[in-house]
Amino acid sequence: MTDSLLIRHDDDGVCTLTLNRPNAYNALSLELMQELITALSSIKDDLSIRVVLIQGSGKGFCAGHDLKQMLGEGTEAYYQETFETCSAMMQEIQSLPVPVIAKVHGVATAAGCQLVATCDLAVSSSKSRFATPGVNIGLFCSTPMVAITRSVAPKHAMELLLTGDLINAERAESIGLINWQVDENELDSFANNLACKIASKSRKTLSIGKQAFYQQLNKPISEAYSQCSSIMTENMLIDDAQEGIDAFIAKRPPSWKHQ
Amino acid sequence: MTDSLLIRHDDDGVCTLTLNRPNAYNALSLELMQELITALSSIKDDLSIRVVLIQGSGKGFCAGHDLKQMLGEGTEAYYQETFETCSAMMQEIQSLPVPVIAKVHGVATAAGCQLVATCDLAVSSSKSRFATPGVNIGLFCSTPMVAITRSVAPKHAMELLLTGDLINAERAESIGLINWQVDENELDSFANNLACKIASKSRKTLSIGKQAFYQQLNKPISEAYSQCSSIMTENMLIDDAQEGIDAFIAKRPPSWKHQ
Amino acid sequence: MTDSLLIRHDDDGVCTLTLNRPNAYNALSLELMQELITALSSIKDDLSIRVVLIQGSGKGFCAGHDLKQMLGEGTEAYYQETFETCSAMMQEIQSLPVPVIAKVHGVATAAGCQLVATCDLAVSSSKSRFATPGVNIGLFCSTPMVAITRSVAPKHAMELLLTGDLINAERAESIGLINWQVDENELDSFANNLACKIASKSRKTLSIGKQAFYQQLNKPISEAYSQCSSIMTENMLIDDAQEGIDAFIAKRPPSWKHQ
Repeated sequence: MTDSLLIRHDDDGVCTLTLNRPNAYNALSLELMQELITALSSIKDDLSIRVVLIQGSGKGFCAGHDLKQMLGEGTEAYYQETFETCSAMMQEIQSLPVPVIAKVHGVATAAGCQLVATCDLAVSSSKSRFATPGVNIGLFCSTPMVAITRSVAPKHAMELLLTGDLINAERAESIGLINWQVDENELDSFANNLACKIASKSRKTLSIGKQAFYQQLNKPISEAYSQCSSIMTENMLIDDAQEGIDAFIAKRPPSWKHQ
Repeated sequence: MTDSLLIRHDDDGVCTLTLNRPNAYNALSLELMQELITALSSIKDDLSIRVVLIQGSGKGFCAGHDLKQMLGEGTEAYYQETFETCSAMMQEIQSLPVPVIAKVHGVATAAGCQLVATCDLAVSSSKSRFATPGVNIGLFCSTPMVAITRSVAPKHAMELLLTGDLINAERAESIGLINWQVDENELDSFANNLACKIASKSRKTLSIGKQAFYQQLNKPISEAYSQCSSIMTENMLIDDAQEGIDAFIAKRPPSWKHQ
Repeated sequence: MTDSLLIRHDDDGVCTLTLNRPNAYNALSLELMQELITALSSIKDDLSIRVVLIQGSGKGFCAGHDLKQMLGEGTEAYYQETFETCSAMMQEIQSLPVPVIAKVHGVATAAGCQLVATCDLAVSSSKSRFATPGVNIGLFCSTPMVAITRSVAPKHAMELLLTGDLINAERAESIGLINWQVDENELDSFANNLACKIASKSRKTLSIGKQAFYQQLNKPISEAYSQCSSIMTENMLIDDAQEGIDAFIAKRPPSWKHQ
């Protein structure tokens, strides 16, 4: 189709980003990560986008860092730049004002598994498999661990990190690494329906909610409540909430100002 | 039965609080929340109560805030008071010295779902359904989010918050939002047995434990251990522990001083 | 076999520690906990050990503290020493540079259940059962709670702590208290295979990873990423990572320097 490392396609509020290094299992080369950061950055202020879908091209979702590239460069400065760029990209996903969905087919390993853990929602094919196999090559998946330990229970994170083994989609679902696993031939329609459903909400409301989610997450509960009480009050005052509640009471569909 | 917004019924250590606005799906009007706070406050020092059961009357458990009332009042100050009162009520449940069980039939949505997440334990009918649908009306469920993100994994919280969809009791159980879902016609007996079982413990012991639970929850582990080691030492010295251990070794039922 | 409270057996990188008070369900007397601390301490610098397996002898895994001993001594100072020693032992397991696996048969209750929650990984027989029954004898399981609330969701922790009831292996697995439950007659081989698999990794890599795991766990995400980016960079520079990646690209098995 194209030689771009990352393909962006917008359709009715849904921005699909396709990792496009199919011959390298979409390994996250430095260049690909930088392109992702640039794309996310441009979405941040693009009011036409209400949800982002990340998928991979070719046989799998994403196999993590590009080990050949890393070993080829081989300097401490290069390694550090790689891990810092990756960490920045992951945090960019969570600081994006709109939800991000991982749509996973095939394998998602190492930083690819971290990407799944980082997205707000994740759906995979029932044939997908997940691993953090760094321990098998002497390189513990320490940065993937940051996202994974914030996504699943400690014992499940340890299981992935210490064994390096692949787990199947059913187990990934049961431990909360993904939300849903669906039949391979239903993955496209499931992910599209999910994205369209979220894209039908008010962008302003989604953005208030997603930002509040991460802001309150690790606060003491009283502080979190104090913050979120103010956020909900402000949310009540925006036109989309007044319209939404009015439509709800009148039993008619809402018409958002902030598409 | 009665016109009270909240019905309290005490029986052998079990205090049952029934949300009683059946025609409004027990929506949490400001008045109902204030009555709940008052009731919880009076239970705090009532040594005859060892466990609280919260249930709803009519078709469902609780549908969240009273949107009609809120829109009718329509001022920022009123919204703020509503969310602050709700947040105070939720925190009152966790600071109560005795355990609180949510007994859910029908739907529990928005602040109703938050109430389920907030209670120490929750059991529902297998026909119950749960949602945080605020996003559908332009008003993100930001205060419910505080309780829900402290109850289930991040992806499961996001699923509820971003889609606004109802999940069934089976899924609510599997993600840890509730402890158990049981057949509709077994809900009463299951909840009663659970409440009676907890009411058979020493009130003093329950109160030491519940308070310690929330105090240590977000502390660094070494600090949590240091605190809980002292708490267990003090617990060993109360008469109910000495009696309980003695009864255990003698293979006889304990007789609590702190019923 | 032996009169030792704790039996240590090393085999090809796997150190098996057997709690050996079969007539007391391996209750954690002060002496047994002190022996465990001593053993863990000696493993810390033993470069021949790459994984630790903890199991119990006799009918069950571990029934918690030795109540008879505690009641016999009966002083506040003795209670405090018991809980502090136990807390120190649990923290020693997590600060050990190599992974620790709990292999559970029969019951694991109170501090025995805490031990399961504390280990990095846990596998049990399908017939195993788990409880924190302190509440039944007036002594809330407050120190076990520290480990259990850091291992499973709040409602599941409350369920164990407030009811005191035994849960079966299937439920323990589903709430994340253990990783796997397997048929009773497969427990030995499953646990051995797991231990051997982990023992086949680079000790240096395991130790970098396990230490990073607990260090980053409760940090703000940006701090965790900053720390783990540096850790992965340093990890890339060790000989075992260079060898592991080289072996991976060359499709040959790695040969660790840090066995």
